[in-house]
Amino acid sequence: MKLILDLDTGIDDAFALAYALASPEVELIGVTGTYGNVTVADGVRNTLALLELFGRPDVPVYPGPQREDFEVAEISAFIHGANGLGEVELPAPATGPAGSAVELLIDAVHTHPDLVIVPTGPSTTIAAALDDDHFAEHARIVMMGGALTVPGNVRPWAEANVWQDPEATNEVFRRARHVTMIGLDVTLKTLLTRTETAQWRALGTPGGTMLADAADHYIGAYATTSPHLGGCGLHDPLAVAVAVDPSLVECLALPMQVDVAGETRGRTIGDLSRQGPLVNVAVGVDVAKFLGEFMTRLTRLAANT
Amino acid sequence: MKLILDLDTGIDDAFALAYALASPEVELIGVTGTYGNVTVADGVRNTLALLELFGRPDVPVYPGPQREDFEVAEISAFIHGANGLGEVELPAPATGPAGSAVELLIDAVHTHPDLVIVPTGPSTTIAAALDDDHFAEHARIVMMGGALTVPGNVRPWAEANVWQDPEATNEVFRRARHVTMIGLDVTLKTLLTRTETAQWRALGTPGGTMLADAADHYIGAYATTSPHLGGCGLHDPLAVAVAVDPSLVECLALPMQVDVAGETRGRTIGDLSRQGPLVNVAVGVDVAKFLGEFMTRLTRLAANT
Repeated sequence: MKLILDLDTGIDDAFALAYALASPEVELIGVTGTYGNVTVADGVRNTLALLELFGRPDVPVYPGPQREDFEVAEISAFIHGANGLGEVELPAPATGPAGSAVELLIDAVHTHPDLVIVPTGPSTTIAAALDDDHFAEHARIVMMGGALTVPGNVRPWAEANVWQDPEATNEVFRRARHVTMIGLDVTLKTLLTRTETAQWRALGTPGGTMLADAADHYIGAYATTSPHLGGCGLHDPLAVAVAVDPSLVECLALPMQVDVAGETRGRTIGDLSRQGPLVNVAVGVDVAKFLGEFMTRLTRLAANT
Repeated sequence: MKLILDLDTGIDDAFALAYALASPEVELIGVTGTYGNVTVADGVRNTLALLELFGRPDVPVYPGPQREDFEVAEISAFIHGANGLGEVELPAPATGPAGSAVELLIDAVHTHPDLVIVPTGPSTTIAAALDDDHFAEHARIVMMGGALTVPGNVRPWAEANVWQDPEATNEVFRRARHVTMIGLDVTLKTLLTRTETAQWRALGTPGGTMLADAADHYIGAYATTSPHLGGCGLHDPLAVAVAVDPSLVECLALPMQVDVAGETRGRTIGDLSRQGPLVNVAVGVDVAKFLGEFMTRLTRLAANT
């Protein structure tokens, strides 16, 4: 399968990138850069640096649009570090960004029938690509974002990615025909702890040390913000894992909307008018199987980089 | 099976009562009276009058507790009429109320292992019965209330029954071991129209005329409040139908909570601490099968009363 990741890189975005690079089923044809955990510019730089660390500087990175009113939230900087990678310093990337994210997405859906797109940040870039009717009809999207059966994380009713651009995710739900939503319903069940990160550190490789350092920062932040969880949520890599193996999750298929006005702005909820396409909303996950795949793949990648 | 209904009688409560009386599988051992659509006193009077209309004055009706701050909401009086039955006038009941609703519920769960309790209003009475540990452990509850995957009806995040007493429903979710939630997720898919009510009117019986008049009032109110639906929601009778035949719905099993504080007070949502018992939340319903059963049963009852 061919894959495009739309990342706001971010610690768990780094895990998502590593999961894709470590998956023999996947040909990563590009990464588009969005904002959220960091700015587009910082996210693109982090992605390029990670691609070099993991030995894949050939993968192009395309900057996407950033909302004019965007600023990195204090909580984002706390969770992901000011540089987005938990203050892990990577060498400045030798390569620079490629062309337009939106054009890449539209062209790639035209060219590759087996393409899956995994957005792990706000839906701004994907919504822009929806102006293309062929994209809306044919793009297969597995997105990390939203919360249907559990509370949000930045508001009691809103998850962080959707909260950044509710109108954009609403467009995705209403116009795209093939959407799977990997929300907090499942990602807060898939937790990483220091037991696992110690395995990466023990590798003694640059890749292993980077993953361990970034993950330990992330786990430390979660210990402050969500001590009841006992680990950090593997939000973004779960979406990649589901793109590779949809059987990891159980889904409800229902028309969805994002509330764009009123007191519940940013909420992802069933659409009572029931006129939109069905969205596959993940409500159950095989935690043990995913964690096994996650550790096997990332450890193999980190051992060799 | 033995059944106790906990009704705030109301038009769709009247349908729920009729469904129970029309079901050969059911032995209705009592009705408890709660508030919501009407006061406890008015609801008990309506229930007694309906039991006489339907030829079952032997079924006892037990008044439950009413929150001190309760007043019938304007929207309730609009939907159900000032008397709760769409201004349909029934003869004053010859019988009066029986003893304590809470005692009946606790005693009945001790006595009847095959008992199912169907509450169709706020959870105040059920929560009071939960002070009895045996009740909490063994009561099988199929409740109409809440909304998990769709917006609420009295607030964007809250359904009317739960909104009346969020603390009580939260107790039910956290303490009762066997709860099925029949919320707006499914009840707004099961709609009655004037096509069906015309069948009752054509019977020419007092029972048929009463059902048709009350239903037409209800459908008229829905045409004002929810014109996109094209009918009225069969909330309460669906809960009774599921008590009789659980295969009518598909459920998600998850720990649930009611938000009792903050901006989403009254919301029914998954409990991230995941320490409570699992609640079976109906998220899908066999609409055709339910509507068929509903019309067959109520028409048979109305033809003979």
